[in-house]
Amino acid sequence: MTITPQQQGRFTLPGEAGYEDLTLELAKRWGADAIRDSDGTVLSDKITEAGFDIYSTVCMVRMDNAWAKANMDKLQQNYLMSKPVAAEGSTLQIDLLNGYFREQFKVNANDDPKAWWQVFDRTTSEEVPAEQWDFDAESGIVTIRNTKQWHRYTVNFLAYRIWEAISMYNHITNNWGDREHLMPVDPIYPETQEFILRKLQQWIDEHPRTKVVRFTSMFYNFAWFWGDSPRLRYNYSDWGAYDNTVSPLALQKFREARGYALTSEDFVNAGRFGSSHNVPSKRYMDWMDFVNEFVVSFGRKCIDLVHASDKEAFMFYDDHWVGTEPYSDRFKDFQFDGMIKCVFNAFEARKCAGVEHVKTRELRLHPYLFPTGLKGEPTFKEGGNPALDCKRFWVNIRRGLLRAPVDRIGLGGYLHLVQDFPDFVDAVEQVAGEYRAIAALHEGGAPYAAPVNVAVLTAWGKLRSWICSGHFNHGLELNEMIESLAGLPVNVSFISFDDLLKSGVPHDVNVIINCGRAGSAWSGGDHWQNPEINDIITAWVARGGGLIGVAEPSACRYSSQYFQLSHLLGVDRETGQTLSKDKMQYEPAQGAHFILEDTPGELDFGHDMDKVFVTSEDTQVLAERECSPRIATHSFQAGRSLYLSGFKFTPQNTRLLHRALCWAANQQDVFLRWTCSNVLTDCAYYPAQKTLAVINSSDNAEETTIINDKGEPLNFKLEPHKMKVIQS
Amino acid sequence: MTITPQQQGRFTLPGEAGYEDLTLELAKRWGADAIRDSDGTVLSDKITEAGFDIYSTVCMVRMDNAWAKANMDKLQQNYLMSKPVAAEGSTLQIDLLNGYFREQFKVNANDDPKAWWQVFDRTTSEEVPAEQWDFDAESGIVTIRNTKQWHRYTVNFLAYRIWEAISMYNHITNNWGDREHLMPVDPIYPETQEFILRKLQQWIDEHPRTKVVRFTSMFYNFAWFWGDSPRLRYNYSDWGAYDNTVSPLALQKFREARGYALTSEDFVNAGRFGSSHNVPSKRYMDWMDFVNEFVVSFGRKCIDLVHASDKEAFMFYDDHWVGTEPYSDRFKDFQFDGMIKCVFNAFEARKCAGVEHVKTRELRLHPYLFPTGLKGEPTFKEGGNPALDCKRFWVNIRRGLLRAPVDRIGLGGYLHLVQDFPDFVDAVEQVAGEYRAIAALHEGGAPYAAPVNVAVLTAWGKLRSWICSGHFNHGLELNEMIESLAGLPVNVSFISFDDLLKSGVPHDVNVIINCGRAGSAWSGGDHWQNPEINDIITAWVARGGGLIGVAEPSACRYSSQYFQLSHLLGVDRETGQTLSKDKMQYEPAQGAHFILEDTPGELDFGHDMDKVFVTSEDTQVLAERECSPRIATHSFQAGRSLYLSGFKFTPQNTRLLHRALCWAANQQDVFLRWTCSNVLTDCAYYPAQKTLAVINSSDNAEETTIINDKGEPLNFKLEPHKMKVIQS
Repeated sequence: MTITPQQQGRFTLPGEAGYEDLTLELAKRWGADAIRDSDGTVLSDKITEAGFDIYSTVCMVRMDNAWAKANMDKLQQNYLMSKPVAAEGSTLQIDLLNGYFREQFKVNANDDPKAWWQVFDRTTSEEVPAEQWDFDAESGIVTIRNTKQWHRYTVNFLAYRIWEAISMYNHITNNWGDREHLMPVDPIYPETQEFILRKLQQWIDEHPRTKVVRFTSMFYNFAWFWGDSPRLRYNYSDWGAYDNTVSPLALQKFREARGYALTSEDFVNAGRFGSSHNVPSKRYMDWMDFVNEFVVSFGRKCIDLVHASDKEAFMFYDDHWVGTEPYSDRFKDFQFDGMIKCVFNAFEARKCAGVEHVKTRELRLHPYLFPTGLKGEPTFKEGGNPALDCKRFWVNIRRGLLRAPVDRIGLGGYLHLVQDFPDFVDAVEQVAGEYRAIAALHEGGAPYAAPVNVAVLTAWGKLRSWICSGHFNHGLELNEMIESLAGLPVNVSFISFDDLLKSGVPHDVNVIINCGRAGSAWSGGDHWQNPEINDIITAWVARGGGLIGVAEPSACRYSSQYFQLSHLLGVDRETGQTLSKDKMQYEPAQGAHFILEDTPGELDFGHDMDKVFVTSEDTQVLAERECSPRIATHSFQAGRSLYLSGFKFTPQNTRLLHRALCWAANQQDVFLRWTCSNVLTDCAYYPAQKTLAVINSSDNAEETTIINDKGEPLNFKLEPHKMKVIQS
Repeated sequence: MTITPQQQGRFTLPGEAGYEDLTLELAKRWGADAIRDSDGTVLSDKITEAGFDIYSTVCMVRMDNAWAKANMDKLQQNYLMSKPVAAEGSTLQIDLLNGYFREQFKVNANDDPKAWWQVFDRTTSEEVPAEQWDFDAESGIVTIRNTKQWHRYTVNFLAYRIWEAISMYNHITNNWGDREHLMPVDPIYPETQEFILRKLQQWIDEHPRTKVVRFTSMFYNFAWFWGDSPRLRYNYSDWGAYDNTVSPLALQKFREARGYALTSEDFVNAGRFGSSHNVPSKRYMDWMDFVNEFVVSFGRKCIDLVHASDKEAFMFYDDHWVGTEPYSDRFKDFQFDGMIKCVFNAFEARKCAGVEHVKTRELRLHPYLFPTGLKGEPTFKEGGNPALDCKRFWVNIRRGLLRAPVDRIGLGGYLHLVQDFPDFVDAVEQVAGEYRAIAALHEGGAPYAAPVNVAVLTAWGKLRSWICSGHFNHGLELNEMIESLAGLPVNVSFISFDDLLKSGVPHDVNVIINCGRAGSAWSGGDHWQNPEINDIITAWVARGGGLIGVAEPSACRYSSQYFQLSHLLGVDRETGQTLSKDKMQYEPAQGAHFILEDTPGELDFGHDMDKVFVTSEDTQVLAERECSPRIATHSFQAGRSLYLSGFKFTPQNTRLLHRALCWAANQQDVFLRWTCSNVLTDCAYYPAQKTLAVINSSDNAEETTIINDKGEPLNFKLEPHKMKVIQS
């Protein structure tokens, strides 16, 4: 079976009224079959009537600022913690919003502070009794009495968000001047729900040509608390946190539904808030589940309206995505038709590709057609090179797409900006062509994968598959590693400690990865104090399982070891608690090891762990620095373990990981088949079509050799960034 | 007043029978007034009758191996933890001594294991009930029943030490072949006490010419558990730990005296034992106090015998020093006449010089007259350069001696070894001359010190003044720092958290240093959870105190900050708990700061802390790396704080510290007086004698300028390693 790639389709173009000719010209050039609007642009009739599918964006929580202004008690809220202040005497006044961006927040003086707020002495960690403090709504100040001199006090208080964060970011980034500040309304209130449904219906009626309603997204934005000081603008930001879902009404409903009450401190968490990087408490997971239940339930009503008008409902897997949890069991109940994810990297492509229960998965490629990028760097303006950005992002993303398909790609922003960048127009044309070729390859079935099934063990598990809180978090070991994994010919799943406790290690898994620093959600923190976790993993390794531990795997200050799996890994780490204990001497292993065969020269694992030591005479140290193992292997009964002191996404390390996975799974013999000799290149073989795709991810021309399934070598030369597809 | 240094005296020479001429010749050359024996040498009549004071060494716990052999139930003991073993099934056998050096230990099968031992499931941290395990004395194996598969089990058991550790070390290092292994007896038993006193009296009677009885030292050696494997020989060693003081009888007496019982786990501590680097528990401190009380009480009886024979009693502040605690309140009750400390560095010279309630403080200089050094490096044999070693150790020590005097110096070992090293003989002659000159300078009174009184705050406080567990622990921030402090013209004391709680910050202190890594005894660990500590230090800084925090000062995972004094320091550290919180931007301070005026070029603080961030808009960052402050200053009310991300003893850093102390104390104006312009040189001014000593600690000739108290510059040129003394 041979599939000829389409020359067009699968592409969503951002149109722009006033630039109709450009819109239609580029639609043809890039093979677009759909045209969309963006935040800040509209489509004219000439565009909407040109025969393309029309995507229209709608953000339901900021649809009507007049209604929001008239219902300020129904704006979205969150808990803030006032900045700690040391008491000089026995009375202390705290200006609650001091340090926060006052254009974003307004103290909630409508709901009884004594019922919903808490004041803490952070020096003793004790709550201050409600009788000892008062709030003055006019000044926004809490006065605390009977303070202890030099103790630090904070107030957990509720604030309305009076400027919707994404809109605020776009406003400030694009200098929208005195354009009105949009405010987010909270659908937890029946009145808001009624308003949203009415407004949505009206919006649908006003968009007869729209085929796809692109929700941005449902209701609650990821957490983004801005600071007052330009030196600390993004005070707290977490792409996966539920801080913005709180209100007294929601807390009351939670109490009724779950039978217990949460407090402000469950959210404030001594100022750490609900960060995805930290291990979530059971109470916090309950809250997430409660919010998810609500968001799916009311979201479904919105989607039903869309479907009733014969339109499709797509979700934008960013911005106000909180509460939707595309990897939750409940996600199917939305009945979304499509999922759109904004991506720079392979792991994000996999994050989108892995979502079930939607017909269409679509990538929104970078760069956005904005003058500047997410970090303020120039893009479509002087000093920018959007064509090169486009190619570099694409070669990252393409690695992931060879492994798992998505159904569409597209762009967003102001189309007119591309006029001065003809090489960008060429680059997108090239990308669109390659993308369609890859999509066609997948149509015959999945590409060949080695019989290596990898489970990444974190505190989040499947719920946050391919996610380490937002875009690429450079330096975060697990994020670096999932970017490598996203392009490897192995099967990857994500499991949690709760999964292990409920069902043990899934039957088909042959390698578990635990990767991260002590105390993080990625490594697992106090989950490692649970002896059942030890039992399950140790028994599984003893029976032949493969374990890869990275940085501080299973680390926890508990009992007689720091890495709770050091008996499997054969290494542990000195954190200052055992300085008087000598460390076992070792001779670094001599000769080439399978894992290191493609890794000449110095390892670069980024800021990897020091002070690692071997705990077993049988541990083999493959690489070290200053007498601290960086790669070590160890056997336990029938199983194999591998320790890496850190990880950084590089072609060499990706190869090292590929080999390590095969080694840990005791499957070295399968490694060579359909693997590129040159680590700067990757390939995927699609057996149903007997077709091989080979990609060059580097900025230079590369040669590479691939062993096919008959054991024959196939040689390739590839230009920079190029892909070849051949029958094989 | 001018004091002419003696040309001889104050020097103890190790004599050696068979080398009488050499002994007497070197005694003259080096100006010795006392001659000693060493472990492995004896003095002949020709030596003892030559008119010198005679020092004789005696180690009371290994005086008579025949008695020890006949009283094996009175050998010294300690708790060991068997190496963790994972249970494969429901029964587990643990060979207790597996992994330990069987020539050092023998399981105590005399005292009921069920009464004194404990078995732990280290996977759950739970104790295994005594009914579930049994000990077989013949095989040395504990069998545990009803084990849970893959849980790791350990046994806390009592072991006799059947080879006294120092003797074992000397035996093995010096290849003593089949010479008998000496065993240490425990004076806790009345029979042992009676024997020791009888034997000591006999020894005194047999040493009529001895003037000074040099005890090595009292009864209990520092902890040194050897391993079976040559890859892990020094399994656990801690110069300050009380592990070797345990026995059932002592535990019973403790219970009677203190009203509560300790368990084996109080000592084993999940395998961390009683390491000085960790914060001691209240229970452990009680035990130390109990042992100290006993050692002083019985030690005094021994010393009384010495005094009754008109001899003097000196203690060796190493080896079996545990329980003596020369910085404890009880030390005076020993009535020791002298204290001898084996030294390489300035902080050790200060440790000896600071001991009160003895007439004589004596330094035992390195290198010892042994073929090899403490780490096995060649000394008095091919490949060694003992003359250079001697000079380099001396220039370190000399910095400390300019600040605080000792009364004598001396050597130890086998004198005949120096015959092949005439340059060593010259070097010692030079050292002896310089030492005497310095001693003479101190006779008129203390050298000038700036009005800067520094208190080093640790969990140990004064009890472990100038001590970070043994010889120089390179890389341990506090050890690096006290080596710098030892030669600075400031007043240094050591205080504990308990001192602060009892009496607050001492009245005369103007700078507090807290230096070390989180969880260590040096930084303070969980003491920082005590709000009273925060209150005391914050109030004191607010009133004008100076705080210097190094590495992870006041660090503790508790409440809303990691550095519990970050409100004073103006910085905190990211340890993975606040990754979603943005860090305040800062501009590194421009222009030269007083603290850095003598620190051109890159800072070298060793392995210093990364991921430090500023917490206050007012924090001044003086040095940084990768956006992480390395030196930062901050004010709080009337007080000043300084943060250093690490510390390493170098001339540049010593100067930086000197300036930092003056700055923190708000005494910059006193810095220049009697300070050398060249950081490789130091000086001390003795006002009573109007005499200035200037030293060059480098291997090269150096020039330096000193401002005297009239503000006039004095210029010096000094040859490598040399000292000049002038009237000024």
